[in-house]
Formats: sequence, structure tokens, C-alpha cells
Amino acid sequence: MTNSETAILRADGRTPDQLRDISITRGWSKQAEGSALIEFGNTRVLCTASLTAGVPRWLKGEGTGWVTAEYAMLPRATNTRNSRESVKGRIGGRTHEISRLIGRSLRSIIDTKALGENTIVLDCDVLQADGGTRTAAITGAYVALADAVAYAKENQLIAKNAQPLIDTVSAISVGIIEGVPMLDLPYVEDVRAETDMNVVVTGSGKFVEVQGTAEGAPFDRDELNQLLDLALIGTSQLAQIQRETLGAK
Amino acid sequence: MTNSETAILRADGRTPDQLRDISITRGWSKQAEGSALIEFGNTRVLCTASLTAGVPRWLKGEGTGWVTAEYAMLPRATNTRNSRESVKGRIGGRTHEISRLIGRSLRSIIDTKALGENTIVLDCDVLQADGGTRTAAITGAYVALADAVAYAKENQLIAKNAQPLIDTVSAISVGIIEGVPMLDLPYVEDVRAETDMNVVVTGSGKFVEVQGTAEGAPFDRDELNQLLDLALIGTSQLAQIQRETLGAK
Amino acid sequence: MTNSETAILRADGRTPDQLRDISITRGWSKQAEGSALIEFGNTRVLCTASLTAGVPRWLKGEGTGWVTAEYAMLPRATNTRNSRESVKGRIGGRTHEISRLIGRSLRSIIDTKALGENTIVLDCDVLQADGGTRTAAITGAYVALADAVAYAKENQLIAKNAQPLIDTVSAISVGIIEGVPMLDLPYVEDVRAETDMNVVVTGSGKFVEVQGTAEGAPFDRDELNQLLDLALIGTSQLAQIQRETLGAK
Amino acid sequence: MTNSETAILRADGRTPDQLRDISITRGWSKQAEGSALIEFGNTRVLCTASLTAGVPRWLKGEGTGWVTAEYAMLPRATNTRNSRESVKGRIGGRTHEISRLIGRSLRSIIDTKALGENTIVLDCDVLQADGGTRTAAITGAYVALADAVAYAKENQLIAKNAQPLIDTVSAISVGIIEGVPMLDLPYVEDVRAETDMNVVVTGSGKFVEVQGTAEGAPFDRDELNQLLDLALIGTSQLAQIQRETLGAK
Amino acid sequence: MTNSETAILRADGRTPDQLRDISITRGWSKQAEGSALIEFGNTRVLCTASLTAGVPRWLKGEGTGWVTAEYAMLPRATNTRNSRESVKGRIGGRTHEISRLIGRSLRSIIDTKALGENTIVLDCDVLQADGGTRTAAITGAYVALADAVAYAKENQLIAKNAQPLIDTVSAISVGIIEGVPMLDLPYVEDVRAETDMNVVVTGSGKFVEVQGTAEGAPFDRDELNQLLDLALIGTSQLAQIQRETLGAK
Amino acid sequence: MTNSETAILRADGRTPDQLRDISITRGWSKQAEGSALIEFGNTRVLCTASLTAGVPRWLKGEGTGWVTAEYAMLPRATNTRNSRESVKGRIGGRTHEISRLIGRSLRSIIDTKALGENTIVLDCDVLQADGGTRTAAITGAYVALADAVAYAKENQLIAKNAQPLIDTVSAISVGIIEGVPMLDLPYVEDVRAETDMNVVVTGSGKFVEVQGTAEGAPFDRDELNQLLDLALIGTSQLAQIQRETLGAK
Repeated sequence: MTNSETAILRADGRTPDQLRDISITRGWSKQAEGSALIEFGNTRVLCTASLTAGVPRWLKGEGTGWVTAEYAMLPRATNTRNSRESVKGRIGGRTHEISRLIGRSLRSIIDTKALGENTIVLDCDVLQADGGTRTAAITGAYVALADAVAYAKENQLIAKNAQPLIDTVSAISVGIIEGVPMLDLPYVEDVRAETDMNVVVTGSGKFVEVQGTAEGAPFDRDELNQLLDLALIGTSQLAQIQRETLGAK
Repeated sequence: MTNSETAILRADGRTPDQLRDISITRGWSKQAEGSALIEFGNTRVLCTASLTAGVPRWLKGEGTGWVTAEYAMLPRATNTRNSRESVKGRIGGRTHEISRLIGRSLRSIIDTKALGENTIVLDCDVLQADGGTRTAAITGAYVALADAVAYAKENQLIAKNAQPLIDTVSAISVGIIEGVPMLDLPYVEDVRAETDMNVVVTGSGKFVEVQGTAEGAPFDRDELNQLLDLALIGTSQLAQIQRETLGAK
Repeated sequence: MTNSETAILRADGRTPDQLRDISITRGWSKQAEGSALIEFGNTRVLCTASLTAGVPRWLKGEGTGWVTAEYAMLPRATNTRNSRESVKGRIGGRTHEISRLIGRSLRSIIDTKALGENTIVLDCDVLQADGGTRTAAITGAYVALADAVAYAKENQLIAKNAQPLIDTVSAISVGIIEGVPMLDLPYVEDVRAETDMNVVVTGSGKFVEVQGTAEGAPFDRDELNQLLDLALIGTSQLAQIQRETLGAK
Repeated sequence: MTNSETAILRADGRTPDQLRDISITRGWSKQAEGSALIEFGNTRVLCTASLTAGVPRWLKGEGTGWVTAEYAMLPRATNTRNSRESVKGRIGGRTHEISRLIGRSLRSIIDTKALGENTIVLDCDVLQADGGTRTAAITGAYVALADAVAYAKENQLIAKNAQPLIDTVSAISVGIIEGVPMLDLPYVEDVRAETDMNVVVTGSGKFVEVQGTAEGAPFDRDELNQLLDLALIGTSQLAQIQRETLGAK
Repeated sequence: MTNSETAILRADGRTPDQLRDISITRGWSKQAEGSALIEFGNTRVLCTASLTAGVPRWLKGEGTGWVTAEYAMLPRATNTRNSRESVKGRIGGRTHEISRLIGRSLRSIIDTKALGENTIVLDCDVLQADGGTRTAAITGAYVALADAVAYAKENQLIAKNAQPLIDTVSAISVGIIEGVPMLDLPYVEDVRAETDMNVVVTGSGKFVEVQGTAEGAPFDRDELNQLLDLALIGTSQLAQIQRETLGAK
Repeated sequence: MTNSETAILRADGRTPDQLRDISITRGWSKQAEGSALIEFGNTRVLCTASLTAGVPRWLKGEGTGWVTAEYAMLPRATNTRNSRESVKGRIGGRTHEISRLIGRSLRSIIDTKALGENTIVLDCDVLQADGGTRTAAITGAYVALADAVAYAKENQLIAKNAQPLIDTVSAISVGIIEGVPMLDLPYVEDVRAETDMNVVVTGSGKFVEVQGTAEGAPFDRDELNQLLDLALIGTSQLAQIQRETLGAK
């Protein structure tokens, strides 16, 4: 899969199973309990974690915490300017969909009982978009979340020995372009992909979300399997980067 | 998988790989160019197809048509009443997400060039909800769409020999409950599922969408494969029912 | 008024004082405490009654219940598709006006003291529209309301001997077309009517609402009286059908 | 009906068939093409008519004009302050309903062909509310409309000999209080009324709108007739005041 | 500055340092706790003060009161009609900005401790606009506020000897037109001004707000000083008129 | 003013007439035609300039360009999280006010004729807030604007010899704290300031905007003059930094 023929398919010179340059700047924001500026190539997402005591009304008295996420894009994160959703007065379907995906992904590795009646909101704001913004957001949000949990322990909002984080989580996009499965698509590849898949995987290698969409021709079982293989290569490397980032404090 | 032990898991007595009773009433609405009232057990969705000449502004002059969908639920389709989204003044994330899924699914089997500059809007309104509303909506919307295409030919809005429909499409939910993969989950099973997957498949057996979510514990490759096997059993039966319904005119 | 000359005025062959075929399917919805699918010819309205303990904040502690209604139309209930009000983000004046009319009509025959601190919301969703949707909605909503009250008694939410329903209520449209007063106008007649009136009448024959509008030329006292005569003929038949439907359980 | 017994029912000393003091200040606004500040006792409504060339898109090329109305209330027009609808971000049902009523009432006496492709918007803003705001609005809006039509002629927007106004129109409220039918209800009477009716009548004495509502017990044919009698007394006096006001320029 | 040369610059014949005719009708509204109809030439603003016990949630238990303001314009206050903000479903930036300015201006002369836990809302509705609406609104709102405070004392909502009003406040616009600084600009001057300034001043001659904007060329320190001189002339006269109005009760 | 006594007033050790550390990263965004990440101490604003051919409808055919701005804050730019305006469905008054201020400030130094029929939108998104966000936004937006104008020349959207930029512009906040006028207030000082002023000044030292507000006691002419003196010290340094940044490309 990584021979010279397919390699030339990628404008940035990567092999099909190669991630873009990944960078995570932990603690980029001075205000939030946890934060990370994450870069997947030219895609840049600022992730902040806001911790507050208490939970939404519908959870009160259950003794469990709550983790949720909001995703958004600056108007000029993209190549041409988009109207602000605040100006339009409504949030678009894509924004809603990605916010929900990030929230579910993070909740999958949180033990809300161990979190106590605390709420953590992850804000993932795309400062620059070049494909894979939702997967960068999930991967960066995990780092911000981990730091917010550490903050909660240091400030005795949760017990020192509580273990709200039961695993790590990261995400990557994969797709089929001119018949070749490829890892971590930038925008120019994303628009050409026949099939596009976002895969969210725990640090222990299990699936949290698998979202595959045929943008062009429908795909078969074999193609699905090749895409999942690639995704697991990518998320295992991302998990390693997350570990290094968090160890580095 | 269909032995007596697992069978008793299901409140309605089905085996794990068995669909609920499926019923499609073609032409339920007298007003629309195509329509179907589809039932998956107690789930009832009214699907109408509205055909109009012309396309949205951003497609004008391209010589291609447009197919889109809107999904909604009556306030008392569910066990307890929900506020109307029109009264709240905004559409929720779930509604947006499902509307987009239905639209993508139908566009995957439409040749928009062959459709000419015509627009078909599929409205999928859930009259009664008991799990699987999005998969019923896709399956019923296909029938409404096929009739709207037939109407377009009869009324010479598109050429008699044009073939806008390049395949059929249907969808089903699958999930893992207490470790057992199961087909076509009603509400009581849906809330208990550890993993929940919606699979959209063409009549020729290829994937259009695969959306798997770990609601409880993350799932492994093996479980993913069992769920896909089950989904293909279900969609192949749904494709057969669609063919019979449309042949029956 | 029912001679051969005027009869030919009506496309469906009815005499001026004749209702369309009326059908009420009680309990059409499995989820609601009361429900009815009502048909006035091709007009089809699904009415559900949702009963919940408690009242809105402004009524708390008064010891009285609350009955309210929401009317809406599916986008393709009509001959050409209308945008959804949820997508537009606001409810139109006509929707507001009819919702308020239905609510007032039902409250006129409810003893809210006898209802206790319970709320009943009537949802009237027009699945197919061919004139007279608001009158069909009122007539069908009464049946759903009556069943919700029965449900409340069976489940001991209100006392067995409480009598919250002090009368029945139904509604019909009347109008003047080419000078001839006519009962129960379908859409093709409605658009031609010079004067259009909706009349809401109790089972005991008293007026709850009289809403007459000159669409073309203003009308005189004589015409008003003829229209009221016709309306009373119609509502007395509807009241009889309601009684039969509710006796038939 | 006007004997001493019933007279004492009214806090302001009027007989049941007596209007409040009516005052119309024509041309109150310097900016509008027509305007009137109308007072029914303490109810004060500022009515302005805005004339612009052209019609809404859906009327273009039909060769007819358009007349529409918008009703609103200042937040402190009433005894306790109401939130602004602009701040709430949505118009309430009552506002919608009254705006539509005013628009229909004025269109009933306009020959839109004679108006040419011009639009007149009537803004009726309640500065002080003491019952009967919608009827004052209709009565005052007629005066503003008549002046806007005169302005159109003077400025040759319509032909000198065109007759867009085919009649005059005014409106009054009537109601039954403790069994006695009464004319022109101020707020204190309005809240006590068992039946409440708004009647819109042309200068030639024909009905444009009859909107009767049982607020308490349903009403019978006899009561309806007495209310209509009273309303015709009131509107005939209002039509006389309108004529005097417009003659007085 | 007031010689014959500059005088002819002004269409209404005023000298550069002359106010328009100012009129304040105290108690114009019968409903509000305080009210004033204020006129700066053809600009007419109705100011009402609504007093209610209690404060917004975020102030509860602080033992201090709250004063806030809302500014709005009738659709036909201006020369051509503007759409209603309630119909558009959102408040414009200009409206927001002016509402906030009025609120801040009034709070600058209120001792909220002395007001106790009471809230006063000032509604400033522009009935006719001819420049300077925000300055007229502030000047009139002060009169309404003073009467609402008097009402609070009379009705023992605050102590007889409490002094919530620590000063008076008024406002005026100034601008530079063809190089000449001028006081109190009507609309025709406002659109021609190179620099436009609104100045809010207490009765004791101190500044509460200074908002200067270069509409054309930027302005220098000298011009700024001349504008401030003029503004102080205007506000000192307005303060005198306010005193006379309030003394006149 | 810079003696040891007053110096200790500032937590960060600055003298009253000293700016915070100012940093401008030109071209921070790869997508926009011009961009700058500006920092005033811990305040960080990302400014992007989006250039598009054409102007808003109301300017078409005038032969002039258009410059406008939108300001926003990320939800966790501040010490505690604020709800997103897109989620609330409406833009707050403060956001509106600042967006308008930035737009006016930039238009004051643009010759829109020389810009041709092109539009430049400045987006100023606050990534981290520590006081002075509006003044940082104006100062940074100028740099982004200058680069977008350069881009327009390089890409021949405007003539090589056109001079749309007639000056530079920058802004700073000043305030009085415990009687001492101070320059460039961070958040901790801003909340304590008795008077708060934002001043926008051109590179040639003239005023574009002067917005002074008494937060506590009203201020006198003397204090106003001291604040203006300080502001001119700050903006002259900012202008120098802008020149160096733009020269440095």
C-alpha cells in the first residue's frame, strides 16, 4: 500500500497510511481548566475544557457528572468566508452533528460516577480548517479533558483517588480516493473521496464511533475493512502522541 | 443465533435476526407526487415526495437535479409529549442529523443528471415512534421517490427513457443487547443496547452509510462484523418488500 | 334549498346543506392518552390528547386544570409543498390563530375545577388538507379529549365522579358561493366563497365561536342568519357522530 | 335597555348602548402619507399609513395594489409592563391575529385594481390600552388610509378619477356582562364579559367581520342578535365621526 | 459664533448654539408610574417608567435596586418605513447600543442602595424621529424616572427620606457641519455632519458619557473642545427645563 | 505621573502611562487575504480580512467599496465560560456595539472610491480576553486590512496606483482608577475604573472615536483632558508598532 505508485497520489507527499504532522500545544489558554491547541497539518483547533460544580437540571441528585461539547468554526477558518451562525441566528446541521459526536466520544471514556456532580464543557473552535476538523477536535479535546480532571483533583472537587478517565480516545478520518484507501485526509483529498469515514477509537483499540458515508459510489465489505485497518494505524499513533503530551507537563 | 435461549431476550418473541412486521401503504397521500405510509412494527412514518421544476440557486444551470429530505416527529409520536420545534423556534441536532442522513442516502442511488433540473423533497414525518424511525424513513422515502420519478416521466418532466434511479435503497438498525447482536430494535431494546448501528444498503448489497455508536462499552472488530452481517439480512428483505410494493401498483 | 338547481353547484354532488363523508377513527395513536384520526372528506387531521399532572406556573395553586391546543400542517398536506415552520424558525399567524381557536373551543366545555391540577394538550396535525381543517380539528380533538378524561378517571388522576366535560363541542364551516349559502366547504369551494364562516357549537346547540369573514363583498344580516342555520344543521350531525364514536369503544 | 337599572352597571356612567368619548386627531404624524391618533376613552392608538410604489413579489404584474396592516402595543400601554416582542424575538399569537384582522377589514373596502401597483401598510401602535384596541385601530386606520389614498392622487401615483375606496369601515366591541348586552367595552368590563364580540361594519351597514367568542357560558341565537343590534348602533356613529374628521381637513 | 454668517447655515434659522423648541408633557401616559412625552423640535419620544418590586435574579439579596432602559422606534417614525424588529425577530445593533446608553446614563445619577430592591424600567419609544432621538430619550426618561421615584415614596415602596436621585441628567447632540460646530442637530444636519457627538451631562455639569464619532474626516483636539463647550450650553438649558417641568406638578 | 507611588497601583508593575507588551503576528492565518494575531498582554485577538469582489446590494453601481467588521468572543476566552451567541440564537448588545465601532474606525481611514466595488470583512475573534479586547481588535484589524489591500493590488483587483488606505488607525483604553488616569487597562483594572474611555486615533494623531463612560462618579473636563493625553501617548506607540510590523514582511 505504501509503494511509490500510490504515494504520488498525495499532494503533500505522504504515503497512504501516513498521518499529517500532528502537534498538540497543551495549556494554550490561560483561562480554562484544561486546554490544547491541536494541529493536524494546517487544521488548527483550539480545545478548552470548562469545569463547573453542579450538573444540568435533568441530572440533579443522580450523583453523576456530565461531559458535553460544542464545536464551531471561525468564519474565515475556511478558504472562503462563511456567515457566522450567531449572525444567522441558528446553528447549522453540520455543527450540531459534530458537537454531538465529540460529546459522545468523550463520554465513552468517562466514568461519570467518579466525576461526581461536576460538569465539563469542551469547546472546540476551529481556527483554521483543512480537513479532519472533527477528528482533530476529538483528539485535542481529550487532552483538555484530562487536564480539567487533573485540575479537579488538585482543587479537591473530586477525590484524589477517583478515576473518571477510564481510557483515552482519539479519532481520524480515512477515505477512498481513486480506489486507494488513505489515512487522514486534508481538504483537497476530502472533496475527491468516494467514501469518507470517521473513526473514533479508544487507547485500548476498541471502536467508539464508526461513521462511513459513500460520497460517490457505494462501498463494499472489503473496502470497509481496509479503511478500518488504516484508521486503527492512525489512532494508535495519536494515542501515543496524547500520552507523550500529557506526560510532558 | 436463533436458538431458544436468545429468542427469549426479545419481548415481542422475535429471533435476533428477524425483522418486525413491515408494512408499506403506497400512495397514502392524495396530494403528493409520491407517498408511502411505512410501518416497522409500531413505528409509523408518512413519507411524501414533492416534485417541482427547477433547482436551488447554487445548482442553477448545471443541468442536474436535486434530492433532499426533511425528517420530523409529531409532538406526541413518543411516549411522552415533546415540544414542537416550530414553537421552540429552532430545529434540534437530532432532527438535523437524521434529515441529512436521509438526503444523502437517497442521493446515493439517484443519477441527478438523468433527473434534469428538477427538485424532489422527501418529507418523512413520524406519526408514531417505536425505534428505528430513521431507517423506516429511508426505506419508505425510497418508495415515495420512485413514484415521484414515475410521475415525472408520465408528465414528461423528464424523458421517458431517462433512468434517474440507479438502484434501490433501504436501511435497518442493529445493536448488541446483553452481548447478543440483534436486528431491527424497537424502543425498549434501543435504550438497552450497548452498541447501536444504523446501516443503509443498496438493493445490490453495497453500503451507503454505516453509523455505529458505542452507547455503553466500546465494541471490537468482531462485534462490528456480526452487526454488519445482521444488517445485510434485514436490508435484503426490505429491498424485496420495496420491489413487491412498487410492482403492485 | 336542496333542489336540483343548487345541487349542481357542488363538484362532489352534495346538496348545499349536506356534510362531506365524516369518519372518526378513535384511538389511532397507541401512545397518547386519547386520540382520533378525523376525516371530513379528503381532509385528515390526527388529534392526540396528552395528559400530564401539574399545570403551567401561572396557574399553580389555583386548584384548576388547563386545556390547550396546538395546530399544525405537514408540509405536503396541501397541493403544493409549504416550508416547515420549524425550519423557518417561526410560527405563522394562521397557525397561531387556529391553535388559539381550538384551545378556546375546548375550554368552553371543560370545568377546569373538576379537572384538578392536570394539563391536557391537544395536538391537531393536518396530514391532508382539503378545506375545513380547523373545524375537523375541533371536532376530532373533542373525541381525543373525552378519552383523555376517561383515562384520567381510570388511572385515578381525577375522582371517579368528577365531571370535567360539561358538554360536547364540534365545528363546521359555512360559506356563500355565487349567492348560495353552503355547508362544509372543501378547498375548491373555500377559495370561491364570498363569505366564509366557522361556527363552533356545543352539543346542546349553543354558540362557542362565530367567526364570519367577508372574503369578497360584505354580507348582510339575512345572509348571516342563513349561514348560522346551516351551521347548526351540520354541528348537530357532528355531535351525533361524536356520541356514536365515543359510545362504540 | 337604557333604563336606570342597567345604567349603574357601568363604572363610567354610560348607558349600555353608548360609545365612550371618541376622538380622532388626523395628521398627528408629520412623516406618514396618512395618519390618525384615535382615542376610544383611554384607549389611544397611533395609526400611520405608509404608501410605496410597487407590490410584494407574489403580486407583481397583476396590475393590482396591496393593503396590509401591523398591530403592536407599547410595553407599558397596559397596567403592568409586558416584554417587547422584539426582545422576545417572536410575535405572539394575539398580535398576529389582530394584524390580520385589521388588514382584512381594510382590504374589504379597497378596490385594489383602482389602487394600481402601489402598497399601503397601516401601522397601528397602541400607546395606551383600555379595551377595544383592535376596534379603535380599524376605525383609525381607515382615516389614515383615506389620507394616503388622497396623497397618492395629489402626487399622481394613481389617476385623479380612480376610486380605490369603495366604502368606509369601522369596528366596535360588544359583550354580555351579567346578562346585559353592552357596547364598547373598556378593560374593566372586558375581563368580566361572558361573551365578547368584535364587529367590523362598512359605512353602508354591511358586515365585514363578526367574531364572537364565549368567554364564559356559550351564548344563544337571541343574545347573538342583541349584540349585533348594539354593534350596528356603534359603527353607524363611528362612520359619522370618520366622515366629519375627513371632511374637516 | 452666533453672527449672521453662520446663522444662515441652519435651515430652521437657529444660531449654532441654539436648541430646538423643547417641550416636555409630564404624565402623558395614565398607566405608568412616571411618564413624559418629550419633543426636541419634530422629534417626539414617549418615555414611561415602570416600577416593580424586586430585582433581576443576579442582584437578589444585594439590597440594591436596578434601573434599565429599552429604546425603540415605531416603524413609521422616520421618513420611509422601517420593518419592525419584532417582525424581523431580532433587535438591531443601533437599538441595542442606544438602549444601553440610556440605561447607563440614568444609573449614573441613581443611588441604587437608596432605591431598595425595586426595579425601574424606562421605555423610550420614538413616535416621530427628526434627529437627536437618543438625547431626547435620556432627557425625557429622567423626568419619568423622577416621577416613578416620587410614586415609590408616596406608596411607601421606599422610605420617605430616601434619596435615590443624586443628581439630574440630560443629553444633547453636537456636530461639525462645514467646519462649524453646532448644537442639537435635526436629521438634515445630522446626515451632513463630519463629526457627530452625543454628550450626557449631570445637572451639576459633569460628564456621564462623551461619544464622539468622525463620520467624515477625523477631528482634532480643538474641534473636540468646541463641541464640548456647545454641549454644556445645551445640557444646562435642558437641566433647567427638567427642573421647571418637575416643579410644575 | 510615573513616580514610585503611583507605580505600585498596577499589579503588573507598569507605570500609569505604559502599554502592556504588544505583539502582532502578521499572516497568522493561511486562508485569509490578510490576518494578524494581536496580543495586548494576555488579551489575544485573531483578526482576519476577507476580500471579495462586489458590494452589498444597497451599494451596487455606486463605484465604491465597502469595509465592515464582526467581533466575537470564544465562550471560554474569559475567566468563566459564557454561552455561545450562536446557541442563544441572538447577538448581544455588547457584541453589536463593538462590531459597529471597529467597522466605523476602519472606514475612517479607507477611501472607498479607491477600493473599487470590493468588500472587505474584518473578523475579530477574541481567543483570550484580559481587558482592551476592542482596542486590540481595531489595532490588529488595521494590519489585516492593510495586507488585504496589498493582496488586492497584487491580484489586480484594484489598480496598482490606487491608494485606498489614507492613514493608519489604532486604539487604546484609558481609565481613572482611585483618581489616577492610567493607560491600557487589563481586566483587573477595568472593573475598578471609575471612568473608562476608548479612544481611536489615526496615525496622524487625529480622533476617530472618543467614547468615555462614567462607571462610577461622573468626570470633569480636567480628567477628560488627562485621559486624552494618555490615549495619544498609547496610540502613537501602537502606530509605530503597526508600521514596523507591516514593513517587516
